[in-house]
Amino acid sequence: MLIVQKFGGSSVADALRVGNVARRIGAAHEKGNKIVVVLSAQGDTTDDLLHKARELNSRASSRELDMLLSTGEQQSIALMAIALHGLGYPAVSLTGPQAGIHSSSSHGNARIKSIDTERITSELERNNIVIVAGFQGINRYGDVTTLGRGGSDTSAVALAAALHADLCEIYTDVEGVYTADPRIVPSAKKLDEISYDEMLELASLGAKVLATRSVEMAKKYQVNLIVRSSMSIAEGTLVKEEVNVENTYISGLAMDKNVASISVIGVMNKPGTAFKLFQTLSKEKISVDIILQSIGRDKTKDISFTVTKQDLPNAVRVLMANKTALGFDSLSFDDKIVKLSVVGAGMATNPGVASMLFEALYNGGINIMMISTSEIKISVLIDERDADNAANCVHTRFFSSAAAFSVAQQ
Amino acid sequence: MLIVQKFGGSSVADALRVGNVARRIGAAHEKGNKIVVVLSAQGDTTDDLLHKARELNSRASSRELDMLLSTGEQQSIALMAIALHGLGYPAVSLTGPQAGIHSSSSHGNARIKSIDTERITSELERNNIVIVAGFQGINRYGDVTTLGRGGSDTSAVALAAALHADLCEIYTDVEGVYTADPRIVPSAKKLDEISYDEMLELASLGAKVLATRSVEMAKKYQVNLIVRSSMSIAEGTLVKEEVNVENTYISGLAMDKNVASISVIGVMNKPGTAFKLFQTLSKEKISVDIILQSIGRDKTKDISFTVTKQDLPNAVRVLMANKTALGFDSLSFDDKIVKLSVVGAGMATNPGVASMLFEALYNGGINIMMISTSEIKISVLIDERDADNAANCVHTRFFSSAAAFSVAQQ
Repeated sequence: MLIVQKFGGSSVADALRVGNVARRIGAAHEKGNKIVVVLSAQGDTTDDLLHKARELNSRASSRELDMLLSTGEQQSIALMAIALHGLGYPAVSLTGPQAGIHSSSSHGNARIKSIDTERITSELERNNIVIVAGFQGINRYGDVTTLGRGGSDTSAVALAAALHADLCEIYTDVEGVYTADPRIVPSAKKLDEISYDEMLELASLGAKVLATRSVEMAKKYQVNLIVRSSMSIAEGTLVKEEVNVENTYISGLAMDKNVASISVIGVMNKPGTAFKLFQTLSKEKISVDIILQSIGRDKTKDISFTVTKQDLPNAVRVLMANKTALGFDSLSFDDKIVKLSVVGAGMATNPGVASMLFEALYNGGINIMMISTSEIKISVLIDERDADNAANCVHTRFFSSAAAFSVAQQ
Repeated sequence: MLIVQKFGGSSVADALRVGNVARRIGAAHEKGNKIVVVLSAQGDTTDDLLHKARELNSRASSRELDMLLSTGEQQSIALMAIALHGLGYPAVSLTGPQAGIHSSSSHGNARIKSIDTERITSELERNNIVIVAGFQGINRYGDVTTLGRGGSDTSAVALAAALHADLCEIYTDVEGVYTADPRIVPSAKKLDEISYDEMLELASLGAKVLATRSVEMAKKYQVNLIVRSSMSIAEGTLVKEEVNVENTYISGLAMDKNVASISVIGVMNKPGTAFKLFQTLSKEKISVDIILQSIGRDKTKDISFTVTKQDLPNAVRVLMANKTALGFDSLSFDDKIVKLSVVGAGMATNPGVASMLFEALYNGGINIMMISTSEIKISVLIDERDADNAANCVHTRFFSSAAAFSVAQQ
């Protein structure tokens, strides 16, 4: 088998962990597999480098930040190759550019455009374990780029797709994908399987197991993804196209704390007002998530929506600056909220899920501020003080056996 | 003017120093000069990375060490570009490979083979200050290489030669080339000028101001080198082809502590014995420096020579292993010695220099173990306990005005 294995920064944070990971990689190689490894920078390296840059210049250029940050992954891959050699395994490290990972030019947030697998393939043919620097590529000017958040996951999936790998294993510090965050919901269970679509919803909703972009790519190229722990031999969670949804209504629960709501009060109740409002925000590159519009009475209506916490100040500023043009009375905002979502492919065919969710929240005494639904998820906006309580109430409702039985009866 | 400026690791060790160096670079750019900067890794970065590698594997491969160590310079150049941007100067960082520095394939000790200046030239034409990672290149396999000891000096001189720069400034933590090490000889004076040949002798004899290879290259391509301090505005020392030697017999004094002597006692006094002895060492890649052969009496003679302290154990081992084949009685060695050398282009035409040196050492009560001479230098091997005393005695003899007058009379 050709296997791509990706290890995150915490899995290779120090010599001890590098050694442990090297033994795991070596064991997979000894079984006769061809192994391509993708690594992130060690532990806090990236943050340390960012701090060094900020000491010199609070607005460092993204090209030079890429030049700086890409050294973190380069150190990881060299150290891993050195560790593998020490254990007697043949290995060679390759930077993103050497591995043929060609990207767009947008530094700090580049996208993989193509992968020239020639060098990797020839190293694999020489029986080498190939260690590739994640999170980086080369643009058409010959400059190193970084791929943005979760970039190493994306590197791994893209390499698995380009190499037609049999499997892409994402090693992390948790044992797989859980029905909820185990730090908040102690009864959360590990899933054996989850579909790409469900994983996508969970990823984009704040479950930090996999980067959204890497799941999108896995779905597009039908890469078999496994999320598993680098610290244990537990099986992990397989992410694939279709999963058996007979016994489950939802796959999991996600909580996104990086959300703030804005309410625009008293806009004119006529066509085009919402369009103008969101166009104004879009020009400032502010993404809007859940949108709620009150039913207009009289001449005015209210529009509420959510943005990320980072975008909140800028969103408020630009709306106030255009108050007259947009024609609203006042504006209020709230950044003490969280978005709780339940995701599941079984949801589409079972209208009972929404009412189970609302019932669980009602029984917990939790007020719902906004609601948003899609084919396979329901999101609610709640007070951040209710977050942990809500997660536990909802999880118990869906995942305790008695509860599941009760839904099945509906 | 097109100026290449090279700053060593201590000159860019922290944010404060990076800022200071950035201001100095910026000032040179503001005067209308085109500036190419070559940087080493910050402070102890290289040692820290080596330590990390050794934790994993005491015999790391040189290819992977190059992959690891080259990140140190890459971080330096990115940080410097970020600092220059913060001060409002246009700048771009380039790795050795990006700067077109093509090297031989011998990892850890590669030699620059050619430089493709296209990228640097186009960046200079866009008015950018170009910051190049020293110490590194790319080999014909597309792998990053490091240039070995003093490699950043070599990068700077090679770039100055390839770009036909008007000047190559080597910034260091001393103010220039001194007549002796000021830490040992307090009366040491800074030289305004020194010839390539003299600098070469001083460099190879242990004066750590410039790497030997970089001076050889400067001589070959007639690059005007200036050695100066990054901490002061003092003028520094100009290294060039010919200097005025009218008033000086020697340019300087160098001390090499990295030396050990080996005496092979009772080898057969017939042709070929010395050849076999040194061929045996050469096969083990052990370099021999000063060689002294006793005048053979009867059937045997003694051969003494020096090696570096690092090579001593291996040299002794390989000689003992070949004792019968080489046919000697016994072997002794001494690593408590230093090599003191005086260097000067004026020496060739003035036979008084050698006797002045011996007289100074005699007056200081210092025993000479071995002597070696060339056109422009005289080296003596002495006990390491005599080192500082010898340096001061010899320096006073040659550099105090009264003494200089007395030589002139000889």
